[in-house]
Amino acid sequence: MAHFPDNPVFKDVLRLVRLQGDIGDLEIEGEVPAELNGAFYRVHPDPQFAPKFEDDQFFNGDGMVSMFRFKNGRIDFKQRYAQTDKWKLENAAGKALFGAYRNPLTDDEAVKGKIRGTANTNVLVHAGKLFAMKEDSPCLIMDQNTLETEGYTDFGGDLDIPTFTAHPKIDPDTGNFCGFGYSIAGPLTREARYFEIDPAGKVVRQANFTVPYYTMLHDFSIAGDYAVFNVSPYTSDMSVLERNMPHFIYKRDLPFYLGVMRRDGDGSDMRWFKQEPSVCGCHVMNAFQEGTRIHLDLPVSETTSLPFFPELDHPWDPAASTTWLTRVTVDLGSNTDEIASMEKIGVMPGEFPRIDDRMAGKAYRHGWMITYDFDKQYNGPPGPFAGVLNSLTHYDHESGEEKSWWCGPDSAFQEPAFIPRSKDAAEGDGWLVALIDNHITNYSDLCIFDALHVEKGPVARAKLPVRLRQGLHGNWVDGSKLAA
Amino acid sequence: MAHFPDNPVFKDVLRLVRLQGDIGDLEIEGEVPAELNGAFYRVHPDPQFAPKFEDDQFFNGDGMVSMFRFKNGRIDFKQRYAQTDKWKLENAAGKALFGAYRNPLTDDEAVKGKIRGTANTNVLVHAGKLFAMKEDSPCLIMDQNTLETEGYTDFGGDLDIPTFTAHPKIDPDTGNFCGFGYSIAGPLTREARYFEIDPAGKVVRQANFTVPYYTMLHDFSIAGDYAVFNVSPYTSDMSVLERNMPHFIYKRDLPFYLGVMRRDGDGSDMRWFKQEPSVCGCHVMNAFQEGTRIHLDLPVSETTSLPFFPELDHPWDPAASTTWLTRVTVDLGSNTDEIASMEKIGVMPGEFPRIDDRMAGKAYRHGWMITYDFDKQYNGPPGPFAGVLNSLTHYDHESGEEKSWWCGPDSAFQEPAFIPRSKDAAEGDGWLVALIDNHITNYSDLCIFDALHVEKGPVARAKLPVRLRQGLHGNWVDGSKLAA
Repeated sequence: MAHFPDNPVFKDVLRLVRLQGDIGDLEIEGEVPAELNGAFYRVHPDPQFAPKFEDDQFFNGDGMVSMFRFKNGRIDFKQRYAQTDKWKLENAAGKALFGAYRNPLTDDEAVKGKIRGTANTNVLVHAGKLFAMKEDSPCLIMDQNTLETEGYTDFGGDLDIPTFTAHPKIDPDTGNFCGFGYSIAGPLTREARYFEIDPAGKVVRQANFTVPYYTMLHDFSIAGDYAVFNVSPYTSDMSVLERNMPHFIYKRDLPFYLGVMRRDGDGSDMRWFKQEPSVCGCHVMNAFQEGTRIHLDLPVSETTSLPFFPELDHPWDPAASTTWLTRVTVDLGSNTDEIASMEKIGVMPGEFPRIDDRMAGKAYRHGWMITYDFDKQYNGPPGPFAGVLNSLTHYDHESGEEKSWWCGPDSAFQEPAFIPRSKDAAEGDGWLVALIDNHITNYSDLCIFDALHVEKGPVARAKLPVRLRQGLHGNWVDGSKLAA
Repeated sequence: MAHFPDNPVFKDVLRLVRLQGDIGDLEIEGEVPAELNGAFYRVHPDPQFAPKFEDDQFFNGDGMVSMFRFKNGRIDFKQRYAQTDKWKLENAAGKALFGAYRNPLTDDEAVKGKIRGTANTNVLVHAGKLFAMKEDSPCLIMDQNTLETEGYTDFGGDLDIPTFTAHPKIDPDTGNFCGFGYSIAGPLTREARYFEIDPAGKVVRQANFTVPYYTMLHDFSIAGDYAVFNVSPYTSDMSVLERNMPHFIYKRDLPFYLGVMRRDGDGSDMRWFKQEPSVCGCHVMNAFQEGTRIHLDLPVSETTSLPFFPELDHPWDPAASTTWLTRVTVDLGSNTDEIASMEKIGVMPGEFPRIDDRMAGKAYRHGWMITYDFDKQYNGPPGPFAGVLNSLTHYDHESGEEKSWWCGPDSAFQEPAFIPRSKDAAEGDGWLVALIDNHITNYSDLCIFDALHVEKGPVARAKLPVRLRQGLHGNWVDGSKLAA
């Protein structure tokens, strides 16, 4: 019998959904642009069974994948669990067998050594399949039309590492899937590997490197010929796992690092540039090369932005956890191992940065984040982060202009995705899709915005009869990549 | 693109769901009695596509069947459309092809003559299948475990009539499914047939009869050896269909009738007893024989209780539409065609009457309805009926006692079903299950009550992440009738 813990991770804004199902021809307010042909995929953590521990982490939930299929102005909704090995073992047992987030010491004997992944962090179509990703485990393959799970892959034996990032980048020139795995020598280890997978699904590049300390190597970026890794002071060690504390603890005394290496090398050229006092920055908007300099844009806070990965020696500080869009620059022409500059490039604080993905790794003009407008009224229950992501902001890096739209006092945004108006449309010319969750009515609407005029509000809303759980990441795929 | 009409039939309390899906191991508040092994099925109307007419009727929606499977204290939820011929034709076309409720004149040419049924009124397991029923069309067969639709049946050719009631009764002695079809000679006709289907699915009795005027012959009862039919003055004619008005109009000048015939005869013994001035009574609690007298208990109002089947010459009157539990008695030993008496036997007004189904057609003690406590506060949007069915009431016909439980200011009940504690438990000893819909949070809970102590409130709630649409009817089936 499912008795979930009576705490904020399982109720109110984070109430579970756990529903696998379909809705054809979603109810629409406004008009869905008829040229939109493709699918928006996203994922949220949603435990199949009540967790083994009352203080279970939000990030420990099984991945629930949603697909919004757009065609001829109609949108069909489909939602299925990423049926990982963990999901299947637990489904057969009728209860949770795996324990705490990223802590194999807490698992039932029967599942020791099994892949613990939940595939709950990101979903993206590549090489004709939907990749469902969680950074502590291999890549899970799902059918991009039916959302049926096929299983974990090692790419025909070519990728012999136990982990696979949830934050890949697609090289717009080659179509290569650029990613990495960390802790590839086992839990808590510093060894990592960069790799690329071509559009046919073949692993075409691999290069090992080592991070300065064990960390949550959550996101990264390509920047032209370079791969760039941002390291924030989330770390852990065996004593943390033995005491079954939250897997990651934040240590502000550790430096923030930016690692830069050539994508076509063997990793031996990796250079780590550091920033002290440290900062915290998890999700990358974009990076690019300008002469000998590399710029990486990401939302940055003074200290941990994730309250559930706390500091042990400092209380949670909402103000210091608020994230502003920041340009971090390093100079490969310098002899120093210091970061050259960190410059705030956005006024509205926020998270979940996105770009027109055709600009990945290139000098770019347009970015978007969901943002905190702290001046606006909010009627719902408290959210899990520093505030409520109640606005969508367009950042024009050329003009410096920002334009925002507030989704109202009852609601919050989930991460958006960009859709180009056509294959050859100019950068930023197209649409943004984003879920807006109403915390009072408990309904979610998938909203469609004119990407360069978000301030006008959505041109259409596809209405769900349910509120999806706060999600993590997702992506749009063009209809040409979906079988008929 | 699904643009539903902007009126109360499609929003607020009646917001659509349209979701086919599954949730394993529902989140539970309290403890589900471990001995509960079986399934509760229920159905609501839920249009697959936006209707052809802005003033579409609530009753015109495609049947959406929900199943709550109980076993070992765990409850699994499954929901599927009753995939009628209409559903399949429209699904293939991607839009509505059939027109207004019970009006074939409004259908697209392409579907003229096809079965119009929506299977949206009641679901019950008999002869190893789930029967999904709508009174204007044949019986739809679904798999009782998977909810996959098998299709319409005429019971091996034995039941050659185009209609099949949505309000059967199961004879507790023989296990026979007792039912009827009306308008069996075509839309608007007065010809009807009583039939019984044995536990193996064989039609074992059939008897034709004629109703006094064309009417919505919605429910009936068995009473020992008799079948009893209640006729309220809902009627129609071709001019109503030609003008595309609501199919049924209420004419208070027509009498209310009770028809009584032997179940084992050929229908020629049918006697119609009348009541003038007329009343309105749709759903039967139970009926039984006492010497030469037949008693039928049902909620009765002065005039139409269904605002969408209006009177043309009188405005809708919420007070006169309120339904009180009433015992209607006729005497087969008399020479009169008048109803002998009508006696109010309940204080709390309400609808959706239920009994311990093992007492169907027998003298009985315990009944339940969901009821209107007009004195209680209500915070939600207006409901579709005379008030909000905010309470559950147990009527003890022996002691005359009534006990009620109010579900709070934000919520409303859907129809309950009774579950005996064991096969041989005394009458009323067991559980009631009923959905409670919260109109503010938009969540439904399936609630479990001790049937003889409903005033104590639910012993457990199975929590859905969605609010099911206002439903019609449903039934419990014991686990022994479900394949392993």
